[in-house]
Amino acid sequence: MERKGRVTIPTDAGYEAETKEIALKWGADAVRDCDGTKLPENAGELAEKVYETYFVTRGDVAWAKSHPEELQHFFLMSERKTARSEKLAIFPAEGYYAEQVKPDYSAESLRYWQVYDRTAGKEHKLWHVSAEEGCVYIEGAKPYHEYTVSFLAHNVWDSTQMYNYITNGWETDKHSPYDPRYPKTAEHIKAQLKSWLETHPQVNVVRFTTFLYHFFLVFNGSGKEKIVDWFGYNATVSPRALEGFEKEYGYALTAEDFIDEGYYNSPHRVPKKAFSDYMDYTMRYVAKTVKELVEIVHAYGREAMMFLGDSWIGTEPYGKYFTELGLDAVVGSVGGGVTVRMLSDMPGLRYTEGRMLPYFFPDTFYEGNESKAVAELNGNWLTARRAMMRNPIDRIGFGGYLSLAAKFPKFVERAGEVCDEFRSIYENAKGKKPHNAVKLAVLNSWGRLRSWQCYMTAHELWYQQTYSYQGLTEALSGMPAEVRFINFEDVKAGALEEVDAVLNAGDAYTAWSGGENWLDEAVQEKVRGFVARGGGFIGVGEPTACAKNGRYFQLADVLGVDEERGLSLNTDKYNVTAMGEHFIFAETPEPDYGEDKKNIYALEGAQVLKMAYSARCNRKVNVGEVKAAVNEYGEGRSFYVTGLPYTLENARLLYRALLWVTKKEEHARRAYSENPNVDCHFYEESGKYALVNNAESEQETVFYDMNGNAKKISLAPMQILWL
Amino acid sequence: MERKGRVTIPTDAGYEAETKEIALKWGADAVRDCDGTKLPENAGELAEKVYETYFVTRGDVAWAKSHPEELQHFFLMSERKTARSEKLAIFPAEGYYAEQVKPDYSAESLRYWQVYDRTAGKEHKLWHVSAEEGCVYIEGAKPYHEYTVSFLAHNVWDSTQMYNYITNGWETDKHSPYDPRYPKTAEHIKAQLKSWLETHPQVNVVRFTTFLYHFFLVFNGSGKEKIVDWFGYNATVSPRALEGFEKEYGYALTAEDFIDEGYYNSPHRVPKKAFSDYMDYTMRYVAKTVKELVEIVHAYGREAMMFLGDSWIGTEPYGKYFTELGLDAVVGSVGGGVTVRMLSDMPGLRYTEGRMLPYFFPDTFYEGNESKAVAELNGNWLTARRAMMRNPIDRIGFGGYLSLAAKFPKFVERAGEVCDEFRSIYENAKGKKPHNAVKLAVLNSWGRLRSWQCYMTAHELWYQQTYSYQGLTEALSGMPAEVRFINFEDVKAGALEEVDAVLNAGDAYTAWSGGENWLDEAVQEKVRGFVARGGGFIGVGEPTACAKNGRYFQLADVLGVDEERGLSLNTDKYNVTAMGEHFIFAETPEPDYGEDKKNIYALEGAQVLKMAYSARCNRKVNVGEVKAAVNEYGEGRSFYVTGLPYTLENARLLYRALLWVTKKEEHARRAYSENPNVDCHFYEESGKYALVNNAESEQETVFYDMNGNAKKISLAPMQILWL
Repeated sequence: MERKGRVTIPTDAGYEAETKEIALKWGADAVRDCDGTKLPENAGELAEKVYETYFVTRGDVAWAKSHPEELQHFFLMSERKTARSEKLAIFPAEGYYAEQVKPDYSAESLRYWQVYDRTAGKEHKLWHVSAEEGCVYIEGAKPYHEYTVSFLAHNVWDSTQMYNYITNGWETDKHSPYDPRYPKTAEHIKAQLKSWLETHPQVNVVRFTTFLYHFFLVFNGSGKEKIVDWFGYNATVSPRALEGFEKEYGYALTAEDFIDEGYYNSPHRVPKKAFSDYMDYTMRYVAKTVKELVEIVHAYGREAMMFLGDSWIGTEPYGKYFTELGLDAVVGSVGGGVTVRMLSDMPGLRYTEGRMLPYFFPDTFYEGNESKAVAELNGNWLTARRAMMRNPIDRIGFGGYLSLAAKFPKFVERAGEVCDEFRSIYENAKGKKPHNAVKLAVLNSWGRLRSWQCYMTAHELWYQQTYSYQGLTEALSGMPAEVRFINFEDVKAGALEEVDAVLNAGDAYTAWSGGENWLDEAVQEKVRGFVARGGGFIGVGEPTACAKNGRYFQLADVLGVDEERGLSLNTDKYNVTAMGEHFIFAETPEPDYGEDKKNIYALEGAQVLKMAYSARCNRKVNVGEVKAAVNEYGEGRSFYVTGLPYTLENARLLYRALLWVTKKEEHARRAYSENPNVDCHFYEESGKYALVNNAESEQETVFYDMNGNAKKISLAPMQILWL
Repeated sequence: MERKGRVTIPTDAGYEAETKEIALKWGADAVRDCDGTKLPENAGELAEKVYETYFVTRGDVAWAKSHPEELQHFFLMSERKTARSEKLAIFPAEGYYAEQVKPDYSAESLRYWQVYDRTAGKEHKLWHVSAEEGCVYIEGAKPYHEYTVSFLAHNVWDSTQMYNYITNGWETDKHSPYDPRYPKTAEHIKAQLKSWLETHPQVNVVRFTTFLYHFFLVFNGSGKEKIVDWFGYNATVSPRALEGFEKEYGYALTAEDFIDEGYYNSPHRVPKKAFSDYMDYTMRYVAKTVKELVEIVHAYGREAMMFLGDSWIGTEPYGKYFTELGLDAVVGSVGGGVTVRMLSDMPGLRYTEGRMLPYFFPDTFYEGNESKAVAELNGNWLTARRAMMRNPIDRIGFGGYLSLAAKFPKFVERAGEVCDEFRSIYENAKGKKPHNAVKLAVLNSWGRLRSWQCYMTAHELWYQQTYSYQGLTEALSGMPAEVRFINFEDVKAGALEEVDAVLNAGDAYTAWSGGENWLDEAVQEKVRGFVARGGGFIGVGEPTACAKNGRYFQLADVLGVDEERGLSLNTDKYNVTAMGEHFIFAETPEPDYGEDKKNIYALEGAQVLKMAYSARCNRKVNVGEVKAAVNEYGEGRSFYVTGLPYTLENARLLYRALLWVTKKEEHARRAYSENPNVDCHFYEESGKYALVNNAESEQETVFYDMNGNAKKISLAPMQILWL
């Protein structure tokens, strides 16, 4: 087996010799710079590939200073202020970080400002602004109504640079991002790239960090994060962009289209038409502009690599225009299986790369913390590896100060093993079609655009409101299932005809559950018809929820469950007993429901699988709360569960649920391992099986081949066994 | 002290001597019959007052049989059936108890039947009915839409009689209720009453059980309760009533006005205009008709007593027309403080009576269960007594087979003590204005009409979705607070000007929380203004909730908290630390939140009092869930808590919260007992204090008089100490 290649390591000027040593141990063929480090002059001697970070719309401090009229903007909402009389003064920038947010009082910006009566939900027209005082004066206000000012502000400090510099206490010139929507900057970013390429001949991979517009990240008065949306388009806006939009679409966007009552069109919101139009408009502009930059890079004989983050907005790897960018590669941070698949499933690239954890920073790499660093590496690797068994990324890498990692010999050794194991997985799995028992469509309001990105807010950060659903995508990332992400338009266009099962999961009224999309008769008809003809339906949390027509779950009839919101207590519930053992729970009788849901009850005819009872209940009929249930609907089947955070047991449960709703129970004896800690994958082309021990302890399992032949197998901790 | 009077006991023919004995022990001055017992001929010799049950619209089996066209109706919805093609057949009565429900295929009824496309939420016009087959044939259906038939059915077996007879396996003639909306029955019920009065000279109290229309209670195919609504008007309906309504109101009601998507206008639903109109229309009709009956009773020199239950619909003791009925008395079952106040606060009566628990039935009074019977009596008495200290009912009583109770000497003794204690409370508290520290308005969609009836479904039955709110009314029933119940129209008319604080509690979108009423700008203005000028606000569960304009809790600014429904995860929450000790929790640091609420977060400026953290959270900033918080708003204050089921601790907590939000903290040292198990009441007229030990164990407390003088006091189990 090749013990070299597909691995990137960080380096630093003055650390060349040690870099070479580790490169040899890990088989690294690429070096990169990082925040706080500098590539050595002779980086090209350290590895075949040399990456260097490049900023497109920030970093040229002189340019930003000399072109204040071409700086980037975002739309912000002031705090909500209550009128006590007919007059009210609001300081729009109050509560924002003055170092980052500068209200733009220019005439072309002010045109877009709005005052909103948030109590009435209406724009309020009587106001004027004093730029000197930084204040909006409202007249004719209604006492005890809340008002806000929506305003365009310049974003005068790049959110990532600011975050790093505030967090680390560094001092530097502020990077004020400039906007290529404006003509001078549009020319400048191309000229600047050319000149950079000329002065950086040793770099053969331009690591764009990133392109034009940062995700929406704004800071509060104390310099702490105030609003963060890794998917947010709010920092792409400008008077110029708005004018262009109006010309093209024939209608004008307003501040409220961006402010969205203060939700700022977070990905959890069911997207509205105006915002969707704006996203498409921006994607096309970003694609066109980035394409020009990539062509310059190629003209200089270098590779163009995009970092998946920071100023990545508008690139949309799962959007309609991504392949037009012409990129060679995308690199992103890997926190687990979902982030692996988010990278490895991207279309139209020569390769993808994942930056593994831990990051070589003093917060982990300090004296006495070696075993924790190794543990973090193993934890990260085990979850990422699950997904790589289905579709590996092409490269892995590390970031930070290599000198810190080098002080931990056990870490260096274990990282070397990981690199080797990665290469062996790549060799066995890349491009080899792994056997999929089931074709599954994940249905939400975003569909393909947010493939593997569902439920996320600030990249992979944990949120109490989403981890019980994010466990589903994490589980799917390493499952023998072909997964696609579809939206409600896709459903109406017939997308369910191509799959065996559909999954809808999330809290009511979120984009993930789908909200009002479920009131669309055509959607209901298609999904009911799909299940009735034999399709499978999996609902988690508050699937199909939208209160209307006597139901909370619009497809309660399909799911066999609905939610008692205290409005139908007059109707007796008798289906209150769990039915004991079931195929789905056979290997995982006690799953983890995460945040769970209360008040779920079963309709007559459904089969309750798991039920909780209130200890307080003194009724003679004890009305329980359904945790899991199945239902038969026509020829099809459904499975409902309140929540499934990521655990190996829950992943297994979800797989068995998929097999059950699609009537493919026999696959629980085909390319299968009985122990939920051990995954089994079968690669049809090579005829190889992989048994993967996802646990850090020895595991026994019964392995079934594609013909159902069983064999007892023992696996060492974390072992992959190729058969 | 008088050891006689104010007590009613059941008796039975053949049990006269023993009845006299117990009447002496308990000081009973009234006897009554019960289901399954018969008054002795010489009942008048047993006690001064003789009650006998009287049915107005049922019981005359011959009349019902000979007037099938004048039987009562209700509107019912068929099961939801999914169309698989353009044709669909629905058997409307499927799933209902055939012995009770007979679809009315007469032309005057069919006029009101409707077929609904529940997927589209629209009436479907293409259908015809076959009375022979009991089937509705639908044409032009849309495949995979759900359809229902809304139909008028005769209610051919009185729900209570049926329940008793099914439950006890009795055999009897079915009572089919007849409807006095029809002319012959209207005359008949009066004639029948007169003749009954003539043949029952020994009865001096006619115990109406009850008047015209039963609460909505319908049974399923297995003869079990299917839908129950103790407040439901659905069994008052008839073609005749609907015609009369149209004539008077100028618009026609439809089946859907009653079916209400299948919710049947349960009291948990925010009432709609058509249904409110119909309620008022029915109340006026019931008042007029009952008045005529009561006048007959009075003409015969007897008293008219109404049983609060069964066929009580339309009487509405807290409605606009109740005093017009001219009743002497109301008797109701007492399960705790709320049911005491529901009775004792009723206007315009000469007296009220509460039937205490346990009921003398073999389910409690069986060999070896004496201590449990005593325990049930004590439990019932302690909760009821709390409310009697504020406003006592005028009489108490028992029901069932006296012969069963007589077999338990300890029970007979303890019941005698209870009767004595009741009389002593009555003497000390009746009409003596007890000191109230606070005037509180309970705000919901129903207001005064549902005084003390909030959150109820089937009378006092426990429901998981409501007990965390019902604890509030139970707590208030015995609290030194003047409580009134108001609705949103009252708020707009200025009702808050008369109170110190307002309480809004319930699940989002229920009538109790208020739903869309909170989008009424005038309501928001009034409540904000009230608090800003110094009023208090208490919110429990999902107060003021209605998703709109960037808020879930419309008065989040007043409450200082809102609910994170997964739509605003992009906004950082920093107010995540509970502030430690607070006046409100001083005596009850670990309250019981009942069903609790998840995802509540505090706005900046609010003070979090109680917070829970997820053990799973791995963010550096641990975002918690608020359980309780306070906020200052203008001159006023608010308190929020996720839920407060009834416990003595929670009752105390609510009282302290009331004192805090109204800035009357000094009352925690005025007519006050430090121990939450011991209540203190002060009767201004007599100058007496009562210290009430609500616990079944000895309690020590510090008692404060109205001047704040403190004194240590010891109380025996359940003791009342008059000072």
